[in-house]
Amino acid sequence: MAKKKHHSTKPLDKLLRVPDGPVRLADHDSAATPGYPGKGKQDAPALTAALVPELSDLQERLYANSKFDAEAPNVLLILQGLDTAGKGGVIRHAIGLVDPQGVKIHAFKTPSAEERKHHYLWRVRKALPERGIIGIFDRSQYEDVLVVRVDSLVGEDVWSQRYAEINEFEAELAAAGTKIIKCMLHVSQDEQAKRLEARLLDRTKHWKYNPSDLDTRAKWPAYQEAYEAALTLCNTAAAPWHIVPSDRKWYRNWAVAELLREALASLNLEWPKATYDVSAELERLRGM
Amino acid sequence: MAKKKHHSTKPLDKLLRVPDGPVRLADHDSAATPGYPGKGKQDAPALTAALVPELSDLQERLYANSKFDAEAPNVLLILQGLDTAGKGGVIRHAIGLVDPQGVKIHAFKTPSAEERKHHYLWRVRKALPERGIIGIFDRSQYEDVLVVRVDSLVGEDVWSQRYAEINEFEAELAAAGTKIIKCMLHVSQDEQAKRLEARLLDRTKHWKYNPSDLDTRAKWPAYQEAYEAALTLCNTAAAPWHIVPSDRKWYRNWAVAELLREALASLNLEWPKATYDVSAELERLRGM
Repeated sequence: MAKKKHHSTKPLDKLLRVPDGPVRLADHDSAATPGYPGKGKQDAPALTAALVPELSDLQERLYANSKFDAEAPNVLLILQGLDTAGKGGVIRHAIGLVDPQGVKIHAFKTPSAEERKHHYLWRVRKALPERGIIGIFDRSQYEDVLVVRVDSLVGEDVWSQRYAEINEFEAELAAAGTKIIKCMLHVSQDEQAKRLEARLLDRTKHWKYNPSDLDTRAKWPAYQEAYEAALTLCNTAAAPWHIVPSDRKWYRNWAVAELLREALASLNLEWPKATYDVSAELERLRGM
Repeated sequence: MAKKKHHSTKPLDKLLRVPDGPVRLADHDSAATPGYPGKGKQDAPALTAALVPELSDLQERLYANSKFDAEAPNVLLILQGLDTAGKGGVIRHAIGLVDPQGVKIHAFKTPSAEERKHHYLWRVRKALPERGIIGIFDRSQYEDVLVVRVDSLVGEDVWSQRYAEINEFEAELAAAGTKIIKCMLHVSQDEQAKRLEARLLDRTKHWKYNPSDLDTRAKWPAYQEAYEAALTLCNTAAAPWHIVPSDRKWYRNWAVAELLREALASLNLEWPKATYDVSAELERLRGM
């Protein structure tokens, strides 16, 4: 399948990439739609569907390369965001576009008793995708500088060291061939209230709600500060952060799919060459 | 979302279910389209897409129940078939319709050195889906009575005992709440030749081909016999076999999606009730 150009503007990677320097989330409009090639919500299904042929082609190249090349790359998409920001929605609607055989999703929950006996990166390393695979982290190592910082689960002397440690970890992954895409799904406090209320008003959504969601919401300023620190201190060339405006779900889903498409395309992967004699095999098959 | 009836014929489960008694694959037309509600290939994209809303609703109910019920069910879909029968295609096109967060895919390869040190069901148990999850086995415990039998990797005294052992294993899973769907993707020898040739003639498909595919093809009668034994001896009420005619890819993909929909619907899952006071939470949210 030939590569297609979807629109002629700047790559979305450039538009959403967090610039160097201190991040203030209040400066980022969570309802914006940078780089969106359509007119609004009504175009989103068609624009997102239009990404599928190229995403499929690129994902298959990634997978195919890993069959023959022990140094083949892989991709790691890290999704972070407050409750209702849409990590699950992105996985369903954007990652759901890709062949599930090429995807490995890992959701990081409150650490288990076993995980707590290890260094905080232990469980993260265990969940890394293999070569040829698109790994999706629903939460990640950043929880160890977010909830852990906000709730003082360890002292500042401990969490303050973790930013540099995470940068080293990610640099090591990137050097070993992992293309890292980090997305902070950015919602406003008002939008979060609307979404929590919608869950409470719909009995088919009650299971998604937990009273602790409001305890977390009550710490909004502390979470904004913790996110700003992570976005500022861990925004490296090897593993840059993107802030994805997420008040509009249709933009958020399209944007993450497009960021994934750009990341895959940037790998410039060719189809692997046959390691057998194609003509000899054809002759053998036809003689059977 | 309300449950919808898609067509009024007999459930596909009944049409494709292997009847009791000895199976002869030659009696099953691999190009048939039993239960297909359309006129042919041209209707398949719309008919398959029409399954998505109900599949999504049912999958989400399954997942939601596991959040609150330690005895909640799960689903295990076992895919078996000769090379090119389309196990990968089914996962891409049928399982790809479902939210990837609710699906766990495991592809069984040649056993690793570690796996060979264990009982053959050890790696199978390790790969079982959690409650609330749709597990997909791309190959399965049946390899241990298929390739193992055809290639005499163990003696007949060993593999001949495995049919009863697999039945016990599956009965145990079913009793613990796993809905098991077993599908043998049935292709003709001619159709396999066409598909292998197509792979060899398309350089973007060369990576899918392995010269050992022809070695396996040369053992066609032995594989038919081994499949017939598995289909005959392991066709239990707890874990029935279905033969899915797979010469027509569009029928095969629709059929497996429909079998999955029927299996999920048969669980009759309600949305879980909130374990918190909904009104009190609404009041608390609105006061923030």
